[in-house]
Amino acid sequence: MKFTTSKSTLAYAIGTVQKAVSPRSPLPILSGILLEVHGDQLTVTGSDTELTIQCTVNVETENEGSIVLPIRYIADLVRYLPDVPIQFHTLPESTSTTIIYGTSQVNIHGFEPEQYPRLPAVEKGASFSLPQDALRDMLRQVLFAVSTDETRPIFTGVLMQVTGSQLRLVATDTYRLAVRRFQLDQEPEQQINAVIPGKTLNEVVRLTGGTEDEITIICGENHVFFLTGTLKIASRLIAGQYPPYEQVIPREFITRTRLATREILEATERASLLVREGYPVVQFTLQENSCVVSVQTQVGWIREEVSGVVEGEPLEIWFNARYMSESLRALGSEELSLELTGSLSAAVLRPAREENYLSLLLPAKPPKE
Amino acid sequence: MKFTTSKSTLAYAIGTVQKAVSPRSPLPILSGILLEVHGDQLTVTGSDTELTIQCTVNVETENEGSIVLPIRYIADLVRYLPDVPIQFHTLPESTSTTIIYGTSQVNIHGFEPEQYPRLPAVEKGASFSLPQDALRDMLRQVLFAVSTDETRPIFTGVLMQVTGSQLRLVATDTYRLAVRRFQLDQEPEQQINAVIPGKTLNEVVRLTGGTEDEITIICGENHVFFLTGTLKIASRLIAGQYPPYEQVIPREFITRTRLATREILEATERASLLVREGYPVVQFTLQENSCVVSVQTQVGWIREEVSGVVEGEPLEIWFNARYMSESLRALGSEELSLELTGSLSAAVLRPAREENYLSLLLPAKPPKE
Repeated sequence: MKFTTSKSTLAYAIGTVQKAVSPRSPLPILSGILLEVHGDQLTVTGSDTELTIQCTVNVETENEGSIVLPIRYIADLVRYLPDVPIQFHTLPESTSTTIIYGTSQVNIHGFEPEQYPRLPAVEKGASFSLPQDALRDMLRQVLFAVSTDETRPIFTGVLMQVTGSQLRLVATDTYRLAVRRFQLDQEPEQQINAVIPGKTLNEVVRLTGGTEDEITIICGENHVFFLTGTLKIASRLIAGQYPPYEQVIPREFITRTRLATREILEATERASLLVREGYPVVQFTLQENSCVVSVQTQVGWIREEVSGVVEGEPLEIWFNARYMSESLRALGSEELSLELTGSLSAAVLRPAREENYLSLLLPAKPPKE
Repeated sequence: MKFTTSKSTLAYAIGTVQKAVSPRSPLPILSGILLEVHGDQLTVTGSDTELTIQCTVNVETENEGSIVLPIRYIADLVRYLPDVPIQFHTLPESTSTTIIYGTSQVNIHGFEPEQYPRLPAVEKGASFSLPQDALRDMLRQVLFAVSTDETRPIFTGVLMQVTGSQLRLVATDTYRLAVRRFQLDQEPEQQINAVIPGKTLNEVVRLTGGTEDEITIICGENHVFFLTGTLKIASRLIAGQYPPYEQVIPREFITRTRLATREILEATERASLLVREGYPVVQFTLQENSCVVSVQTQVGWIREEVSGVVEGEPLEIWFNARYMSESLRALGSEELSLELTGSLSAAVLRPAREENYLSLLLPAKPPKE
């Protein structure tokens, strides 16, 4: 294998796949990245077997070939290389690569590429495409609600449903729930009903967007694939049935308020400073023409008045301050509608002028006096 | 106490003194900052008794007064405040302050200002002034060599000597040594020979510079003071005699080389990637017209050739890679002179065209085969 490329091309390809690699994987070869040169293309692959990321870039090839190099060294080394043409050279049968730059060279021991696990081939399945930016923005609106509790794997994923031409993304950790709908341009051949690991989707968010180019999603029996021109992300699906969630969304409310998202968010974050070392809940009081955010602790007290339009009955309710901040940040709207059915029932947050998103937040118990 | 100011003024004053405060000080009041309003000035003080920082800013005063507020809450709170006029209000005899911004307010419990320790008054002593930028740049050139080993306190400080109108700053951790000289405009009334804690000088570096304004240094029996228009830094001196250091600086050399600082620094840093998980030493080979930086480990090997002018005998020597990087970074010069008297003797690094700085670095043992 022998090819020449630039520092920025290498850094891009390695940076793209890096998050899929565990530098201290129990299977040593998986702590490396696979480099494969075919024609004028270098394909770099990183994988932890659950999640695989592949990035293809153009290089100047002298000989085709492949090798696996430890991510721990190659990633930092590339970052420190000078901005000159960089040549990778692996002798046939060798498991080390010499990297030549200017008058200097470094040699890194790697692994035999034949030992690298075979990656899932793109399965047949339902497929659809949408603009990368749109997907990224929608994923951000639900990913905050994904659970990190590995004992209930189904909640560590996002439900992706396509019915007709309607895409729906749902996440919940049972304390909050986020639902995003989107109208696709085309209708996949089959319906989709799959649960994708949150970790995978965080990578999709990191690696896509900043472009109106499309991303294609193919959903098979056990795997989902995200494909762009240079990028291929493959992930195992989470097995199991996603619990019914629609019935927990309140259909009515007794109090509704319209607030400026930024004002209520900033008030919540200041209040959360006073509770960060104790029970992290903050009171929200809906009264005529305003929502008051307040709490009293050993540190002191805070009282923030955010003006807004309040319909219905006055109401006091407590929320976990961090959960409320995250829900507010995910709204993606300057104005929000907060709908309540009582002090002990879930609140519904919606962007003020957007029908396709809502999130739900359970109230918290008030602190003991 | 009642005054009004802006978020940026508060953030500046609190950010300035913050590093002198231990948020979890065993003496609770020292986990706070002292706010004192006299006339139209707010003076904020933070201290851990060893190091005290005071910052004075202009505010709109309604009533004079003072209070101590916990740094843990006040610093973050100010960061989250909106950009509107901010009023602090403490009732007489109260140990809490209400902060009023727009239609909102927060109240923070504090401590009685009378309980706050008395700070060292500026002592009589030798004093001199120099531009802030000059002081900051010189301190950066020696601080990297300060020891962090508290069992030998004298090495955790920087020796500051003024003889006639010559200022000299010296630091060593016994593995490396840095000496910076500077010609003052004026001659202090007395000679100075004091050891100032490295922690104090790191704060001086952080808080000064970016300006040609002068800073005044007053050195008393037990304390040193750094004074600018808005800032007062007071620090205890380290007791004890600084060991004689001049005798360890080699007067002659058998090999001398001139190198581009950036090239040898980058080569050293790339080589250090290969040794970061083992014995962290790298070989430097001085040969005709170049210095080769190389090392071989279980990870692989590296060989970097940095061209330069070499006078004298060829020579191989090993250095701790991190120490070499730090010494090279401190040079502040595009070109350097590296002087060697043998593989087992200290190397001298100097800026190529600057007489007033040198650093010394002991060689390391080669790794075992």
